[in-house]
Amino acid sequence: MPMTTPLRGVVPPVCTPLTASGEVDTASLTRLVEHLLAGGVHGLFALGSTSEVAYLTDAQRATVLETVVGAADGRVPVLAGVIDTTTARVVDHAKAAAEVGADALVATAPFYTRTHGVEIARHFRRIRSAVDLPLFAYDLPVSVHTKLSAALVSELAEDGTLAGLKDSSGDDGALRRLIVALGGREGRADGPAPAFSILTGSELTVDAALLAGADGVVPGIGNVDPAGYVRLYEAARAGDWDVAAKEQERLVALFAMVDAGPEDEMGRSSSALGSFKHALRLLGVIEHGDTAFPQIPLNAESVALVSQHLRAAGLRPVR
Amino acid sequence: MPMTTPLRGVVPPVCTPLTASGEVDTASLTRLVEHLLAGGVHGLFALGSTSEVAYLTDAQRATVLETVVGAADGRVPVLAGVIDTTTARVVDHAKAAAEVGADALVATAPFYTRTHGVEIARHFRRIRSAVDLPLFAYDLPVSVHTKLSAALVSELAEDGTLAGLKDSSGDDGALRRLIVALGGREGRADGPAPAFSILTGSELTVDAALLAGADGVVPGIGNVDPAGYVRLYEAARAGDWDVAAKEQERLVALFAMVDAGPEDEMGRSSSALGSFKHALRLLGVIEHGDTAFPQIPLNAESVALVSQHLRAAGLRPVR
Amino acid sequence: MPMTTPLRGVVPPVCTPLTASGEVDTASLTRLVEHLLAGGVHGLFALGSTSEVAYLTDAQRATVLETVVGAADGRVPVLAGVIDTTTARVVDHAKAAAEVGADALVATAPFYTRTHGVEIARHFRRIRSAVDLPLFAYDLPVSVHTKLSAALVSELAEDGTLAGLKDSSGDDGALRRLIVALGGREGRADGPAPAFSILTGSELTVDAALLAGADGVVPGIGNVDPAGYVRLYEAARAGDWDVAAKEQERLVALFAMVDAGPEDEMGRSSSALGSFKHALRLLGVIEHGDTAFPQIPLNAESVALVSQHLRAAGLRPVR
Amino acid sequence: MPMTTPLRGVVPPVCTPLTASGEVDTASLTRLVEHLLAGGVHGLFALGSTSEVAYLTDAQRATVLETVVGAADGRVPVLAGVIDTTTARVVDHAKAAAEVGADALVATAPFYTRTHGVEIARHFRRIRSAVDLPLFAYDLPVSVHTKLSAALVSELAEDGTLAGLKDSSGDDGALRRLIVALGGREGRADGPAPAFSILTGSELTVDAALLAGADGVVPGIGNVDPAGYVRLYEAARAGDWDVAAKEQERLVALFAMVDAGPEDEMGRSSSALGSFKHALRLLGVIEHGDTAFPQIPLNAESVALVSQHLRAAGLRPVR
Repeated sequence: MPMTTPLRGVVPPVCTPLTASGEVDTASLTRLVEHLLAGGVHGLFALGSTSEVAYLTDAQRATVLETVVGAADGRVPVLAGVIDTTTARVVDHAKAAAEVGADALVATAPFYTRTHGVEIARHFRRIRSAVDLPLFAYDLPVSVHTKLSAALVSELAEDGTLAGLKDSSGDDGALRRLIVALGGREGRADGPAPAFSILTGSELTVDAALLAGADGVVPGIGNVDPAGYVRLYEAARAGDWDVAAKEQERLVALFAMVDAGPEDEMGRSSSALGSFKHALRLLGVIEHGDTAFPQIPLNAESVALVSQHLRAAGLRPVR
Repeated sequence: MPMTTPLRGVVPPVCTPLTASGEVDTASLTRLVEHLLAGGVHGLFALGSTSEVAYLTDAQRATVLETVVGAADGRVPVLAGVIDTTTARVVDHAKAAAEVGADALVATAPFYTRTHGVEIARHFRRIRSAVDLPLFAYDLPVSVHTKLSAALVSELAEDGTLAGLKDSSGDDGALRRLIVALGGREGRADGPAPAFSILTGSELTVDAALLAGADGVVPGIGNVDPAGYVRLYEAARAGDWDVAAKEQERLVALFAMVDAGPEDEMGRSSSALGSFKHALRLLGVIEHGDTAFPQIPLNAESVALVSQHLRAAGLRPVR
Repeated sequence: MPMTTPLRGVVPPVCTPLTASGEVDTASLTRLVEHLLAGGVHGLFALGSTSEVAYLTDAQRATVLETVVGAADGRVPVLAGVIDTTTARVVDHAKAAAEVGADALVATAPFYTRTHGVEIARHFRRIRSAVDLPLFAYDLPVSVHTKLSAALVSELAEDGTLAGLKDSSGDDGALRRLIVALGGREGRADGPAPAFSILTGSELTVDAALLAGADGVVPGIGNVDPAGYVRLYEAARAGDWDVAAKEQERLVALFAMVDAGPEDEMGRSSSALGSFKHALRLLGVIEHGDTAFPQIPLNAESVALVSQHLRAAGLRPVR
Repeated sequence: MPMTTPLRGVVPPVCTPLTASGEVDTASLTRLVEHLLAGGVHGLFALGSTSEVAYLTDAQRATVLETVVGAADGRVPVLAGVIDTTTARVVDHAKAAAEVGADALVATAPFYTRTHGVEIARHFRRIRSAVDLPLFAYDLPVSVHTKLSAALVSELAEDGTLAGLKDSSGDDGALRRLIVALGGREGRADGPAPAFSILTGSELTVDAALLAGADGVVPGIGNVDPAGYVRLYEAARAGDWDVAAKEQERLVALFAMVDAGPEDEMGRSSSALGSFKHALRLLGVIEHGDTAFPQIPLNAESVALVSQHLRAAGLRPVR
């Protein structure tokens, strides 16, 4: 669907279910899209970090995007991650995403390379001019090892290069400064940036980000409980901040599943991604809980912990 | 005054005015305390990072604390920073602070050294047992280069070692997880930790922290506009989140003064501290705006920017 | 050519000359290979970081590797960088490199993702088993943001997964510990690892690395002065350490060209890569000095500085 | 003794033996100084990081320095660490050190604070003008979280602020660039800096640093085996690089004791410091092996490992 601007609401980064042999499980992925839409989400972000995009070959990325676009079937916009080291490689992904029917693109600053702020601006401008789709900047210092400065984002917002920001920096103070620079929570509509959408990736402080004036959220654990994030979002839109905060607390407790994997055996990222996928398996949405190679899979004890977290949050495992 | 527990409200880290020769300007400091109390603050944090504690000799620290305790005169509790590299040195500061009449102590994890989590726990327990005053942990990774884990803080909260946390980590997601672990925004009173006070040092997201269940704030720029933070706090306590957010936005705009100093000539910390002190000078509260050596002072152009920020926020420079 | 093991000597990371429109300049690249072989180098590393591999599309990477393999024509072994975020993507590059005729592969640990040590070991083992070519681990924390531990490298050396290490960590102390763990400078031939090659990427301390027992060097500025590094290497092999150190000093002075670009306009990486390429242009080896987009090109003043550095080191610009 | 300039040779950072109750064990410290002088060292560095300076109160620091100066009795120069957060506090330590009879001072850049390069230069100049003793800059990014730039050190060397550098940055490439900037390994005597002494703290690559033109070394494990480092130094001075490298390898193997402590129970710094002190205890030099609070002591198993490392390196435990 043509994306309304600015994009608002809950836009989960869609997990990528895999088969036992490590290929994209399109049937599970289609069910996952239905699960998310049934939860009331306002958009889908395919091929993000939570989608394990960095683990997928180009062929697998194409399969994922085709499946999500097909399953969404125009009911909500589909944002496509175009994650790669530098501009030329990102543009290749962007063209592929446009062909498959993505409604918007999400790109990081260059990584692996060491890139100056001026060069980062050139990077985003080139992507925008190469493929005619709304472009979101993805600020993810934990992976990219660069923080997008408020000055840079403002500049690219105001000149129309960027349609929005997905802020996964965890730096809510910097986000607040950006919102104020763009006109403030009430004044942004009349501010300097045309229809600029601010989505937080900080899934534990969504009530706070919405209070500050963010437009929406891209919550990894929104795969598991999309309806919870939609309730949180709707309460915030209604100004019912106590309800929003209470729902956020329930989701914070649910999020504790990310530490299910044993710390001495696997990384925290693998533990988090594995817990989301096993939760979806336990809920009957997808077939397998395994993450992409070389990540260590959760063991049975860890999966049991995931199941406990689901029940404690009022969700119902069916396996 | 004996500190009520948990400590709640606005507790500014009191700037340390200096004379032209770099000594503590006790007359200005006394006026600053009056300025803060007139603004309605609920406590004072002397010898914190914003107080330039790391630049002060032991003799100067003693002068500062005596002055603040004397000026406060029991009207609000005075927390004293006991900032030094490791336990034995911190204990020396703690004993000195207790003698002068501090109501509580604020200590970081060891720095300069590389210290394991188990050793950090030993550190806080030793301080607590050496000096019988409520002890706050000060989480400031930008200076200490260690992030206090939620597990560590929970453990030390539950066993009574810590009376509270001053969280300047900027990691609002981690703070949220800690609050939920301690019982949640509503359940904390009945949670596992006895009267544990959570104060955020993230002065740009105070409405968010209070919505999440924090007890108060330690805002550097609260030196300049204490009444603004008190209004924000009171609105939040009343559940009037839109008013709180609006006040926060005004304070975010005011905070932009921290970048008044030219970026190629001085550090961002020196620029921020200089802007706070010059703002206080322009408001007629203190005599000189200079920061401690070896920090570069703000130039005239930068001071003019500070003045503009004051006016834009509705404050009235008198110089 | 089938690589003799362990690989020893000077193995420059071959720059990738570009045309004015940003495509691979195969004629210049062919001349560059001749320039390097004329300098006496012992191998070629195509598609490394100095080759701007992260800026090249898959099609461009193929062109580069075909050109280098063709130009080398079996006279020295060609190592191919297979640089991508995770295992499946790296294996795709590795298969492509094998088809084109690379003699060995050079892979980093996963990046962008956060990956545990155990997972990194799985990563290298999977690559080794997927494509039957000698595999070098590329330790480049400045890009990958993980340091390969000595324990991990030892394990993968001893079990035959790795044929060697390209150490660009800059941590010469850790490298020394690894060499000692593998049997020491004299004992390595009889040590636990079968024919394991240690190449330093620290081009400013090559004499030191060779004294410590390293087998060779992968010097970026070896593109500009391959004969200098070969002289340094031969002196070291002959035990003539004073000659080696003197040659190293000349190359350290030459290396200062990396700061030719203005610091406020461009990154240090762009400045370094641009200086190497402009030096090659000035020496008449390649046609254009531009680096890949979005890097800022050197300005005329910077190019003049590069020229000065060449002359000061006894090299003769022809332009 | 008045320090000859530039200072050259082996200058160990003297460990601080403690009694069972955690006080400075002056009898053991006196024996340690004799042990080091018997090994042939050329100077002593008291109150450095290996001396656990950051764990010592001001009173304990005074005791340490008095003891070392008294025990050295003018036979070699004594350098005193004056380690504290910022200028005023460092100057207090510097005055105390001068009174006790230190021959030179060793200061880091400010830490805990965030300090600009221009401010760091002011810091060193103020210290130098406040106390009339030769001043060494101590570059220790792992503790200070700032790397002293080559440009800054050159500037302060050339104008006479600094008498030398203790480089514990581990960045041997940057050190090489500094040496070349100051005139090179042979030309430094006639270079721009008056009698500037470069001492490496990278104890695993001392042969390399001396080959590059460094004047000496400050080796932590030189406490345990001072004679080994003196042999290494003398071989290097004689141009016998193979002997130097072989001795270095023996010391690298000995250094592996730093990992004796269990990784999940204690930090690597505590493990290293504990291993040095227990090695000294096992060799009969000092009475107790404990490190300062809050560091975890080595357990019996770890101490046994230390003993094994001593024997493997040809040293003879007497306990």
